[in-house]
Amino acid sequence: MDLNSDVGESFGAWTMGDDAAVLPHVTSANVACGFHGGDPSTARATCALAARHDVVVGAHVSYRDLAGFGRRFLDVHPEELTDEVVYQVGALQALARSAGTTVRYVKPHGALYTTIVHHDGQAAAVVRAVREVDPSLPLLALPGSRVARLADQAGLRVVLEAFPDRAYTADGRLVPRTEAGAVIHDPAEVARRAVRLAVDGTVTTADGGTVRLAAESLCVHGDTPQAVAVAAGTRRALEDAGVPVTGFL
Amino acid sequence: MDLNSDVGESFGAWTMGDDAAVLPHVTSANVACGFHGGDPSTARATCALAARHDVVVGAHVSYRDLAGFGRRFLDVHPEELTDEVVYQVGALQALARSAGTTVRYVKPHGALYTTIVHHDGQAAAVVRAVREVDPSLPLLALPGSRVARLADQAGLRVVLEAFPDRAYTADGRLVPRTEAGAVIHDPAEVARRAVRLAVDGTVTTADGGTVRLAAESLCVHGDTPQAVAVAAGTRRALEDAGVPVTGFL
Amino acid sequence: MDLNSDVGESFGAWTMGDDAAVLPHVTSANVACGFHGGDPSTARATCALAARHDVVVGAHVSYRDLAGFGRRFLDVHPEELTDEVVYQVGALQALARSAGTTVRYVKPHGALYTTIVHHDGQAAAVVRAVREVDPSLPLLALPGSRVARLADQAGLRVVLEAFPDRAYTADGRLVPRTEAGAVIHDPAEVARRAVRLAVDGTVTTADGGTVRLAAESLCVHGDTPQAVAVAAGTRRALEDAGVPVTGFL
Amino acid sequence: MDLNSDVGESFGAWTMGDDAAVLPHVTSANVACGFHGGDPSTARATCALAARHDVVVGAHVSYRDLAGFGRRFLDVHPEELTDEVVYQVGALQALARSAGTTVRYVKPHGALYTTIVHHDGQAAAVVRAVREVDPSLPLLALPGSRVARLADQAGLRVVLEAFPDRAYTADGRLVPRTEAGAVIHDPAEVARRAVRLAVDGTVTTADGGTVRLAAESLCVHGDTPQAVAVAAGTRRALEDAGVPVTGFL
Repeated sequence: MDLNSDVGESFGAWTMGDDAAVLPHVTSANVACGFHGGDPSTARATCALAARHDVVVGAHVSYRDLAGFGRRFLDVHPEELTDEVVYQVGALQALARSAGTTVRYVKPHGALYTTIVHHDGQAAAVVRAVREVDPSLPLLALPGSRVARLADQAGLRVVLEAFPDRAYTADGRLVPRTEAGAVIHDPAEVARRAVRLAVDGTVTTADGGTVRLAAESLCVHGDTPQAVAVAAGTRRALEDAGVPVTGFL
Repeated sequence: MDLNSDVGESFGAWTMGDDAAVLPHVTSANVACGFHGGDPSTARATCALAARHDVVVGAHVSYRDLAGFGRRFLDVHPEELTDEVVYQVGALQALARSAGTTVRYVKPHGALYTTIVHHDGQAAAVVRAVREVDPSLPLLALPGSRVARLADQAGLRVVLEAFPDRAYTADGRLVPRTEAGAVIHDPAEVARRAVRLAVDGTVTTADGGTVRLAAESLCVHGDTPQAVAVAAGTRRALEDAGVPVTGFL
Repeated sequence: MDLNSDVGESFGAWTMGDDAAVLPHVTSANVACGFHGGDPSTARATCALAARHDVVVGAHVSYRDLAGFGRRFLDVHPEELTDEVVYQVGALQALARSAGTTVRYVKPHGALYTTIVHHDGQAAAVVRAVREVDPSLPLLALPGSRVARLADQAGLRVVLEAFPDRAYTADGRLVPRTEAGAVIHDPAEVARRAVRLAVDGTVTTADGGTVRLAAESLCVHGDTPQAVAVAAGTRRALEDAGVPVTGFL
Repeated sequence: MDLNSDVGESFGAWTMGDDAAVLPHVTSANVACGFHGGDPSTARATCALAARHDVVVGAHVSYRDLAGFGRRFLDVHPEELTDEVVYQVGALQALARSAGTTVRYVKPHGALYTTIVHHDGQAAAVVRAVREVDPSLPLLALPGSRVARLADQAGLRVVLEAFPDRAYTADGRLVPRTEAGAVIHDPAEVARRAVRLAVDGTVTTADGGTVRLAAESLCVHGDTPQAVAVAAGTRRALEDAGVPVTGFL
């Protein structure tokens, strides 16, 4: 099982998360590309840090929205979105190479991630961008999402992921962050859900049921106060349960 | 002799210059990378247009200053500047590839261009960035500039350029844009100066003297009302004088 | 009848529209506040120009989206939107005073304008902002819009406006810009529609019918090539038809 | 003696400092206006918090440089700088009023603050802006600075301030932040220096000497890990020494 985490989201004088503490526990690093967070120097330093820990670097592409941290839907035209994703991946590719590593996958961030679960035009735009930049780059996506289907149809490798710290609905969708209980903060509970996802391929839903989630990767958030405890605890729990924690590449 | 021009500087709803009219007359296109102008869609379209006209694409890198169009000195730390230049070149590389071409040189823009004539730290930062991205990329620079010397010492190919539409001081420096007469607007006069630069390697200075300028490329500005006339007239005058107008690569 | 136009939308090195040519023909100037266009110096100069022509200044508030010129829906939280509108109006108030005039109304721009036709949360946010800044400021709005109703309920003066250069549906809504025929470019046709709106309070719809539109103000766009011709022609046509062209204040 | 501190510098998802913990200890709050930090919602919330603690609100105006947090010199034209300062103060005035308070002074931030110690054009630009917005607003400035002199000549009230946590040169200038020892981190040492500044009007310089500094206000930084301890300790030490800690208004 792969563990991915959002890193490199600091911007200028502002710090986000504790990347140096999280990176030793994960196998894939979603590095911000400057559109929701992550200035060029942060991106380079984060790539270098990931390389030092043998963590695979992915491009964490976003709407152009620093003020909203990429968490707000923006009705950008699909053609412009393609170009913006190409721009972001290319920028991170150059910085990753400068830091002695390479960009090896793409993961959309925030509102873009949740929008392309259902929005055909923007989902297709992201798929088109990845194909143009490098069709060998896998795309991290939500099981059952439009973008997963379109990427698959376009011949991209799709890596499905689950969120052990997020509540799920009965049909396997994420409970929106704006709802109470959407995020699970207790590291032990997150670790238990991670193990169950890895071993059984299922998760307990918000209404107490069970839903099946095929996932090759688990996302552990890096921007919460308990991020390090969650990442470390999840990894340890997986390993204790006999689940090898290795990248998906 | 190469003719280079700044293109791709539109941004969102705002248009700058008439790239479609200028590109047929030049051999090298300095394409904005988003830090002073040029959103991703503009950059891609400009690269595609350049490719259609067999014009070589270069990365026109800048300070991060959309509000000032990159024309104001910014005391950015050299390490950050290196990362910002790498970011910009990488972003344009990806878009150029999407448009069926490649980035084949780097030219700093505006205040960054004039600052690295004399500012060691920022000049070295730009050189470091180009080396990191691709040490085979030539750097366009002003004759006698610090950046030209540092790039040369670092093993980069330096392409020296002259500005037939800009006034020069007796020691071969550009008269600052803020001074009267700094920019020559008459297309015929610009064309005459271009021919003299190409044939004799000299230009008449602001005080009426003559200064020698070794240049492999001439820059014709694309963002003035008479830009198209200047580009077309300069090219025709060069060809009429028997100077082959070809790229420097 | 009042004539309003969008002005002050240039940004840094980029020019938008020909404000100096349009302002003599209108009675109300929607001055951009920096979130979709309009840097502080442009805003001040535009206010000064408006004052010289006895044109009333309004704050043309927008989503924070320079790259999209405020023309893309952004799912900003209503509380943040209120604060952003207060910020923009306050900024323009200070610049208007510096230029010898004052902000005397508020008009939302672009996607914000069209969103608050139906989006309760964002419509209420704009109303709240105007009330906080100055409850005596009228709000320009589309007839039948949610924001018009909420503003009216909140005790704000609502000035309803119509668009003689835009196609209307049978139920009095604007045909979206993305559809063919959404914008009427012929100055003579726009002027005829303006006169009919002023004299009869009706407009011909896209499907050839007639719809009634109560409007105190007509918007003539300032950012099209024929903007000046449209503004001048519309004013002349109104005056020729005996409609006094005066501000709504 | 007045105690002022920089607050409201968070931006979107990024937090800076612990305003809620610092504000109870100071008498004047330099609230960021959005150009180096401080989005509109942060600005409003900070003004509301200041009002709750009877802390006077000032506009902390800056270069337009979010990526550099306003800490880098930007060679902005003085006329544009005036307009940018007017814009920022006006925006904060509106938000402060919405939060039940008012802007009662202006303090330039970061690189703008240190530049107008010596840069005539930009110093005059700031003075012009304050006069235009409201000539009754005091300007916080460094003793001996150009801006202090120009503001005084222009009839503005100048409030001189000292920095108990910054090292001083023998001629009363701040040791640049880039030099070792420029910032004093020990809260007890900062408090001792504050008391000496308040009681004797002197401070120990970096080379061990003493320099006289007339100051009506002491700046305690809010963006360091020990910010709260410094603010609380400084206030307590001043009060223990019999120095009344009250605003300068």
